[in-house]
Amino acid sequence: MECYLDNSATTRCSEAAAEMVAKVLTKDYGNPSSLHNKGMEAEQYVKNSRQIIAKSLKVEPKEIVFTSGGSESNNLAILGACYANRRLGKHVIATAIEHPSVFQPMKALEDMGYEVTYLPVDERGVCDLQTLANEIRQDTVLVSMMHVNNEIGTIQPIEDAARIVHDRNENTLFHVDAIQSYGKVDLFPKKSLIDMVSVSGHKLHGPKGSGFLYVRDKVKLSPIIFGGGQEWGRRSGTENVPAIAGLGVAVQEMFHNREEHVKKLYELKEALRSQLAEIEGISFNGAEGTFGAPQILSVSVEGVRAEVMLHALEDRGVYCSAGSACSSNRPAISRTLQAIGLKKELLDATVRFSLCIYTTREEVDEAAKVMAELVPALRKYRRY
Amino acid sequence: MECYLDNSATTRCSEAAAEMVAKVLTKDYGNPSSLHNKGMEAEQYVKNSRQIIAKSLKVEPKEIVFTSGGSESNNLAILGACYANRRLGKHVIATAIEHPSVFQPMKALEDMGYEVTYLPVDERGVCDLQTLANEIRQDTVLVSMMHVNNEIGTIQPIEDAARIVHDRNENTLFHVDAIQSYGKVDLFPKKSLIDMVSVSGHKLHGPKGSGFLYVRDKVKLSPIIFGGGQEWGRRSGTENVPAIAGLGVAVQEMFHNREEHVKKLYELKEALRSQLAEIEGISFNGAEGTFGAPQILSVSVEGVRAEVMLHALEDRGVYCSAGSACSSNRPAISRTLQAIGLKKELLDATVRFSLCIYTTREEVDEAAKVMAELVPALRKYRRY
Repeated sequence: MECYLDNSATTRCSEAAAEMVAKVLTKDYGNPSSLHNKGMEAEQYVKNSRQIIAKSLKVEPKEIVFTSGGSESNNLAILGACYANRRLGKHVIATAIEHPSVFQPMKALEDMGYEVTYLPVDERGVCDLQTLANEIRQDTVLVSMMHVNNEIGTIQPIEDAARIVHDRNENTLFHVDAIQSYGKVDLFPKKSLIDMVSVSGHKLHGPKGSGFLYVRDKVKLSPIIFGGGQEWGRRSGTENVPAIAGLGVAVQEMFHNREEHVKKLYELKEALRSQLAEIEGISFNGAEGTFGAPQILSVSVEGVRAEVMLHALEDRGVYCSAGSACSSNRPAISRTLQAIGLKKELLDATVRFSLCIYTTREEVDEAAKVMAELVPALRKYRRY
Repeated sequence: MECYLDNSATTRCSEAAAEMVAKVLTKDYGNPSSLHNKGMEAEQYVKNSRQIIAKSLKVEPKEIVFTSGGSESNNLAILGACYANRRLGKHVIATAIEHPSVFQPMKALEDMGYEVTYLPVDERGVCDLQTLANEIRQDTVLVSMMHVNNEIGTIQPIEDAARIVHDRNENTLFHVDAIQSYGKVDLFPKKSLIDMVSVSGHKLHGPKGSGFLYVRDKVKLSPIIFGGGQEWGRRSGTENVPAIAGLGVAVQEMFHNREEHVKKLYELKEALRSQLAEIEGISFNGAEGTFGAPQILSVSVEGVRAEVMLHALEDRGVYCSAGSACSSNRPAISRTLQAIGLKKELLDATVRFSLCIYTTREEVDEAAKVMAELVPALRKYRRY
């Protein structure tokens, strides 16, 4: 039995979304910028997906900018906002547990002379809002906060954070990396005063190479890719129509019966957690219950190196992640696990299981059973 | 009969490439950064396409950086090279007839305090190499030159240009936008001393959202999208494996019997040209014979507005372009047509036919026949 429980790394594209991609690639393959009807047809696909997505967030279609994925969305939000608003100042705030596609643009800003404040988090991974309030200054251009952490699943209090940010400085922009949360945790940027939201398609059964950035009307944003002026000048380049159309399908599937999907995910996660909890020397990271995302379970296994665990699991058909898969193959110590103060000996002994709406109870039970068998055996091989 | 002769705007994705995309989306959907075998499988697709592409250019696989398309490739080359080499100077050179995805990054550089020199072109669209030689200075960081112009098909003497650039200043980088030429005109960057080459997948029957930048080993380049460090840190973000795999298939198809494909394209273009030449008041733009690309024919139709011509043609099933489709829907006067000194009354009376390797003689004949019928009729409606 194969149990793919690495859905926060990437998901299987849904059949309907993949069919849409193939259809647009070979049948309705026009360039939306073409003036003839093959162009119009193509544009209609883009328009359609834009409407589906706007509706899911309760925002306007013209506030959705399609990108090539989550990393580009985060880069566009952060670098684009800083470039366009440089007259406001050169101070930026992020949490200590951001994804590399937020963290590295921050490093790039530091190289350009920006000052970046990293907000500490508590042992659950939640950042302290009082610290946030204290750090906002007159020259703070942007605050970037991850909605759901990709490694431990902790949900940040983004609504409260947004209010604090705008109360302290009406010019400061508030960006949310929602790549792991979109479709799984409530998110209504307009109501919550969030200025920008990043989303990736391949984390929710859409095609790789798809994603978008919600940009609130009137937010000043410089492009990071210049050219033909597509996406209202915010993202040039021929629109990736097949991927955008496929993303629309995936979003529709995700938001159809969303409450049920989320409820099911929480049940599956709890089933996995409670079975794993029976194994000696196992602990869990991140916030408990509904303070954690429904699909992510971070598990530390005393005495078993994560990579060993991962490969032993894959031999039994269970796929998970050591830390996260987002940093190209480089085995680095997780900033997130360090930031929550995880014991040193567990930093390298933590795996992530991540579920999706197609995950079954059987898969979860199988994964737990395999873990229960493997962990004691693998511990024998510990080197100390 | 439908005649899609707008292949320089975008092409129909080949069946084999689209099948590959669908397969990778739903079957081999792993994230190449995952440590388990689903990640390795995915990585193998990327590696495979990288090898196919490297072979087509006679370069090393590690010199190919996958991007989301041609616009991103051009932006990465231009902005990335300027950022990484800012200590060398702040002067950049481009031709006067570049695509918006080169022209607009140049404008962005000007906003950052760079000086940009635009090389004039002659009436065929060929830029003068003596002027290029004279303009290269000690502080010239980059020269960017389009290989084949997207509107009129003129081929620039890029090998001679590369030699001049490096003779004049060994630190100056030479970038070629090969988006319209790759697969159609000989291009061997290593042999020709070209430092960077941009290519787009959807112009050659590959998937939209695919493309790459050739970057010669040892060229210093800053990323424009930061994050997980994929593509040797040059382009972060989960690799778009399905699109990359599909691109590999399309490149293989394009380079299989490439000489025959090119010969056929030249024959079809000549067949179209000679039939259109019979129509009164028709003239052609760009360089003649093999000094022009095999797939692009720019046609000025005295007394008929391009948009009117285009829509009349599409009513008869013939698809072409007014100018180019690369600038999102905005009817602007073509910089290229102005730069070659086209008569004012023809600037707005020029359409582009662009062929592909699947174009048939029947389509070309039909297009010529329809043009011969339409042009005299449409001229009656001219407003002056």
